[in-house]
Amino acid sequence: MEIVECIPNVSEGRRPEIVEQLVAAIRGTSGARLLDYSSDPSHNRSVLTFAGDRDAVKRAVLALFEAAIPVIDLRTHRGEHPRLGAVDVVPFVPIDGVTMEQCVAVAKEVSSAVAERFAVPVYLYEEASTNPLRRNLEDIRRGEFEGLAEKMTTQDWTPDYGPREPHRTAGASIVGARMPLVAYNINLNTNRLDVAKKIAAAVRHSSGGLRYVKAAGFMLEDRGIAQVSMNLTNYQKTPIFRVFEMVKREAERYGVAILESEIVGLVPSAALSSAAEFYLQLERFGPDQILENKLKSM
Amino acid sequence: MEIVECIPNVSEGRRPEIVEQLVAAIRGTSGARLLDYSSDPSHNRSVLTFAGDRDAVKRAVLALFEAAIPVIDLRTHRGEHPRLGAVDVVPFVPIDGVTMEQCVAVAKEVSSAVAERFAVPVYLYEEASTNPLRRNLEDIRRGEFEGLAEKMTTQDWTPDYGPREPHRTAGASIVGARMPLVAYNINLNTNRLDVAKKIAAAVRHSSGGLRYVKAAGFMLEDRGIAQVSMNLTNYQKTPIFRVFEMVKREAERYGVAILESEIVGLVPSAALSSAAEFYLQLERFGPDQILENKLKSM
Repeated sequence: MEIVECIPNVSEGRRPEIVEQLVAAIRGTSGARLLDYSSDPSHNRSVLTFAGDRDAVKRAVLALFEAAIPVIDLRTHRGEHPRLGAVDVVPFVPIDGVTMEQCVAVAKEVSSAVAERFAVPVYLYEEASTNPLRRNLEDIRRGEFEGLAEKMTTQDWTPDYGPREPHRTAGASIVGARMPLVAYNINLNTNRLDVAKKIAAAVRHSSGGLRYVKAAGFMLEDRGIAQVSMNLTNYQKTPIFRVFEMVKREAERYGVAILESEIVGLVPSAALSSAAEFYLQLERFGPDQILENKLKSM
Repeated sequence: MEIVECIPNVSEGRRPEIVEQLVAAIRGTSGARLLDYSSDPSHNRSVLTFAGDRDAVKRAVLALFEAAIPVIDLRTHRGEHPRLGAVDVVPFVPIDGVTMEQCVAVAKEVSSAVAERFAVPVYLYEEASTNPLRRNLEDIRRGEFEGLAEKMTTQDWTPDYGPREPHRTAGASIVGARMPLVAYNINLNTNRLDVAKKIAAAVRHSSGGLRYVKAAGFMLEDRGIAQVSMNLTNYQKTPIFRVFEMVKREAERYGVAILESEIVGLVPSAALSSAAEFYLQLERFGPDQILENKLKSM
């Protein structure tokens, strides 16, 4: 059994009937299982989450492009969230029985097909990236649809696939592969926002902390407690338990303890079992000892 | 999706061709997946592990009885392990999408069918037990096959199903439902066996410790370290992390630390995620946030 997760972000979040058409394209693809979708009207953007084997997710993404391109026009699209195209971002995420390399290959095959069938230029990003300038989503999206035609005239921004100019209505798409994100918050038993901010600065990659952590400090005003809010972008290389222990230690330095932590949304079970392995000091333990994995492989 | 695990113990461990016939009865049952089997010649006993939905495990157990009864004769069977019958013990274990109560019902249905089809008396045990005297396997098996005919003449030992005397060659069977066992060992950074024995006595139920823990102290002679070896008989009510923390604290009292722990064989993933929840102080977390569970339910 092989599971790839795919989370396309599309530039439509205000017309529910159009969103339903896009969702129907996923639902109508055999082997693709829709897990979730939600629209943000102020962003004018929707996020679809689905899963399947490599073949199914490829077919589903192409069906999504086919449904989206005739009905989304970036020339008149307005919304708070930066975007480059109609089907703006398409990450493929290895969940089970599939490697990152195989997800990169899926991203490239889909990109090639999108360019050929729909004449939409495609940039590869994250693990699929072919150019260090174009690894981060934010860098690729800078200037947005409105600045894209000019940006594409420079050599750095020749797309990986497709024409060297934007699609007239659908702009460009950003396709790639990445690890699953874990949204992880730690609440502190203090109302001092400055402590949460200092801890966030200590653990996050951008200011010298752990490589796969993004973090910020917030106040939960209704509860009067400070929160270190994080995205863990590679739970295998920067595991949850190490982040937890580092936050705990940094908090101690201010006389603050951890009140609780929370995972927002979904988490791969391996991220939890690695925490169990760490704290229980488990040796000689392998994933084939987990009953559910054993049953699955039978 | 519903998964019941079943681990029959049969009184044959010396004739591989007979064991293969019994294994074939499981393999030949549609919907039953054989996970493992092993024979112990000194015990003259084999343990088969398989899984399936309620209907499949019922059919598989009846096929096993049908294969075993003609070829196992307790009158000539010898082995170190105590036993009462040809198909000696049959536990049903709820793994996923099925409750303990439903596994108890499966145990009763199978017992009734075994008594009717094969004229083998059946005692219900553990969660399926109808009599506090007959909850523990050891109590039911005391006296073994050789003492069974006499034992069955007393009112306390009227079987739950079937005739009030042993089957001439197949004795009696013990059928029930229980939680999955977790075989869990903790190795100490000491060569003092007395410390391991004292810790075992502190944590095990029989001498005043945690309700669902069986424990003993051993020496791992080749490594020169002492081990607390345990069976956790209900990982939901006495979770692994609580056992680990209690052993750790007891060890500290002797100036001893935990070197490592190990899980022998299989463990349900929920036993690991509960440890992650504890150590990471996770709040507002539910099993539907585990990606694999979410995918399964789609």
